Amino acid sequence: MTEQAGLSHYRADGAAHMVDVSAKDVTAREATAVGVLRTRPDVVARIASGDLPKGEAVATARIAGILGAKRTPDLVPLCHPLPITGVDVDVVPHDDVVQITATVRTRGRTGVEMEALTAVTIAGLTVYDMIKAVDRDAVLTDVHVVAKSGGKSGDWTKEDA
Amino acid sequence: MTEQAGLSHYRADGAAHMVDVSAKDVTAREATAVGVLRTRPDVVARIASGDLPKGEAVATARIAGILGAKRTPDLVPLCHPLPITGVDVDVVPHDDVVQITATVRTRGRTGVEMEALTAVTIAGLTVYDMIKAVDRDAVLTDVHVVAKSGGKSGDWTKEDA
Amino acid sequence: MTEQAGLSHYRADGAAHMVDVSAKDVTAREATAVGVLRTRPDVVARIASGDLPKGEAVATARIAGILGAKRTPDLVPLCHPLPITGVDVDVVPHDDVVQITATVRTRGRTGVEMEALTAVTIAGLTVYDMIKAVDRDAVLTDVHVVAKSGGKSGDWTKEDA
Amino acid sequence: MTEQAGLSHYRADGAAHMVDVSAKDVTAREATAVGVLRTRPDVVARIASGDLPKGEAVATARIAGILGAKRTPDLVPLCHPLPITGVDVDVVPHDDVVQITATVRTRGRTGVEMEALTAVTIAGLTVYDMIKAVDRDAVLTDVHVVAKSGGKSGDWTKEDA
Amino acid sequence: MTEQAGLSHYRADGAAHMVDVSAKDVTAREATAVGVLRTRPDVVARIASGDLPKGEAVATARIAGILGAKRTPDLVPLCHPLPITGVDVDVVPHDDVVQITATVRTRGRTGVEMEALTAVTIAGLTVYDMIKAVDRDAVLTDVHVVAKSGGKSGDWTKEDA
Amino acid sequence: MTEQAGLSHYRADGAAHMVDVSAKDVTAREATAVGVLRTRPDVVARIASGDLPKGEAVATARIAGILGAKRTPDLVPLCHPLPITGVDVDVVPHDDVVQITATVRTRGRTGVEMEALTAVTIAGLTVYDMIKAVDRDAVLTDVHVVAKSGGKSGDWTKEDA
Repeated sequence: MTEQAGLSHYRADGAAHMVDVSAKDVTAREATAVGVLRTRPDVVARIASGDLPKGEAVATARIAGILGAKRTPDLVPLCHPLPITGVDVDVVPHDDVVQITATVRTRGRTGVEMEALTAVTIAGLTVYDMIKAVDRDAVLTDVHVVAKSGGKSGDWTKEDA
Repeated sequence: MTEQAGLSHYRADGAAHMVDVSAKDVTAREATAVGVLRTRPDVVARIASGDLPKGEAVATARIAGILGAKRTPDLVPLCHPLPITGVDVDVVPHDDVVQITATVRTRGRTGVEMEALTAVTIAGLTVYDMIKAVDRDAVLTDVHVVAKSGGKSGDWTKEDA
Repeated sequence: MTEQAGLSHYRADGAAHMVDVSAKDVTAREATAVGVLRTRPDVVARIASGDLPKGEAVATARIAGILGAKRTPDLVPLCHPLPITGVDVDVVPHDDVVQITATVRTRGRTGVEMEALTAVTIAGLTVYDMIKAVDRDAVLTDVHVVAKSGGKSGDWTKEDA
Repeated sequence: MTEQAGLSHYRADGAAHMVDVSAKDVTAREATAVGVLRTRPDVVARIASGDLPKGEAVATARIAGILGAKRTPDLVPLCHPLPITGVDVDVVPHDDVVQITATVRTRGRTGVEMEALTAVTIAGLTVYDMIKAVDRDAVLTDVHVVAKSGGKSGDWTKEDA
Repeated sequence: MTEQAGLSHYRADGAAHMVDVSAKDVTAREATAVGVLRTRPDVVARIASGDLPKGEAVATARIAGILGAKRTPDLVPLCHPLPITGVDVDVVPHDDVVQITATVRTRGRTGVEMEALTAVTIAGLTVYDMIKAVDRDAVLTDVHVVAKSGGKSGDWTKEDA
Repeated sequence: MTEQAGLSHYRADGAAHMVDVSAKDVTAREATAVGVLRTRPDVVARIASGDLPKGEAVATARIAGILGAKRTPDLVPLCHPLPITGVDVDVVPHDDVVQITATVRTRGRTGVEMEALTAVTIAGLTVYDMIKAVDRDAVLTDVHVVAKSGGKSGDWTKEDA
């Protein structure tokens, strides 16, 4: 199997490597990922509008997500380090879920999908941590990329997004 | 709202804090979390038994998960640092999914659910990174705790686990 | 010069080292540090009660401070790693200042003054970062320990604190 | 409030974000920050010319400052990662103070004031750590930017610097 | 002694600094380093072809080396941060040794020899960690650069490499 | 193969894991490792007694080694995090070598050989970085453990150490 036809993070001999992107162009790139922390309505109510000031709980998760985006190459072994140029993380509690969306921008040689996904998961874990004492059955779910732009493969938006 | 009745990561005035656990006993604690990376059967086939040697892809995700567990207090703002005494991460590709399970052990003053969840999500993101070039629609999903033991609240196993 | 008589972070031959604390008792310890970010009243007004929701700016600095406390041994070369058991960071804007207070707790063999000071400075730098575009003359000042307890040297409170 | 008129680290809805700088030019940038660790003359004498070889204590603080500059985006949540191209840290003990100056250079899309300030504070905390056993009343104070160059806002030097 | 004539990491006054490379050109650069973990044939046999599946042990060391390369500026105080564009780490057990080779690529203002050396040593330490329970006499040895290209000093290959 | 008979970092099924040490006793432990940076006499002369003040070059390597010891579990994937209670690093230039020795102490459930080895290699890489511009043929070599004490396996000193 050649790199081109398969999983580029592995060489023809099956060894993991950080694929060489030296020859790729530096372009403006952006990716958006989403995810959901599913809990109970009474727990969401506490985060969003109840006893707990909304700002602080939401802000804690947001800041964790932004810091998480910057840590991506330290966490995901085969990711390239990238000079992130912008991050937005939204943490929206409603009904029985907390919805998380992260958009990451860079000017670099590879995309920022992993940075956006890492921001979403770390923000999600931060919410999980807040509520685990009151809901052992919480689930972080449906984490995926919904849009990316820039790079040779062009713009893409998930069809059912 | 008192800490005891609500979300202990926030004080009565709504400020986030790392709750004081100085007075808690040091006990043996263990937690297991799971998650699923959902992709396509042909992608899983490449990871598991096809062109790509299974060991290297699975091992990469496993190592990322183990390192991720150790990084938890750096990533999740209100988590206590804990001296982890053991981590097992299993990464099992089959059908159209890669199933991830992580068990973390410690002897400490707080539980290790967040460490187990972080191991699962970082391992899952590592698989996502490997396959994102061939499947833009992959989803990291159903990440949750299935069992914990130790501490004052005693042993617990998710009912439908 | 013996260690006991001088600066214990340096050996008799003048070399920096992390002093051996293996023989010290593990005791409950606590330290509180404070600091001030001095800017202009109109800038504080924006942080505290003006255009900018107070919670988010204050929360960002607080979370940075809590994470900073956990990073202390990575930043201050001769500090011992410690299992922090609790952190409180207060960020209070008023008049032309933002006052920062951090209390850190542990059960360990050395004190947590450096952790409290690191929390204060990182929280202060985070506020500085927020306002530097509107006030180039901001100053982070008067960062010091005001109280400590635990350990062989006993409890201490700064006289004019 | 628009970003332009106010604190750009917060969006119009008050949420913290890492502001998008993708469209900014890459230019050579430099910033210098200073700070003072105030203690007692006898303590400074030990650091500078007494029992303790000057080189080692000063070098320890300097190295901590240089490493701290590189860690800035990991510590200050809304800071952009930047490829630092040079750092100088000076640690000068005299009278009852240790004066710290840090200059940081980059070629990037944002300034390096925060990197210079972080270098100063981490170097200052490292001195604090060395002397805290002999002076509980030490203070890290007057940390601020004294000059910056590069970027759209042009060169600037603090008037009374 | 001027910087040019001597060790550029130190100024004319002897102070360590991160030398200013702002004026250097960004060019494609590559460096390869090697090292050897020397143990006993029976230990190598376990790693390579015996009881232990080769893939997992080799992969663990390889992943540690790749992550280590990305951590270089955090570990080596005077190293410049660089946007690594590719890393290959080979871990080859045979006879009584495990041979480690790392090639790192970037497009930057300084070379990547330190990144390649760090990858080799961290991979080597990871093998050491695996086998230390069965061979206390293992040695990590002969770690050096064998080739570099790019930059003003041009291409170079170690003569007896 | 059982864990006990083989490489404990791998399970019977060949998967890497962080072996569970929860049941081990906490005891005082110490390990000493050494290594050599081999270069040319004229280069060593510059570091030790020539143009370059000895203190600063030696101190830079020493501080890097001490910080490296604290980073070990972040770098070596299957290492347990340990509360280090003391670190000494000696960096001695003479003839054509720089000799590095590191002793690490803890009170924990596993030994600190890896921490001592990491301190030696990071200190060695830091010297390498200083001199690589004047000696491309430098070699970091003969890195190994020379003594350990504490734990079930008892005290041990390398025979020919």
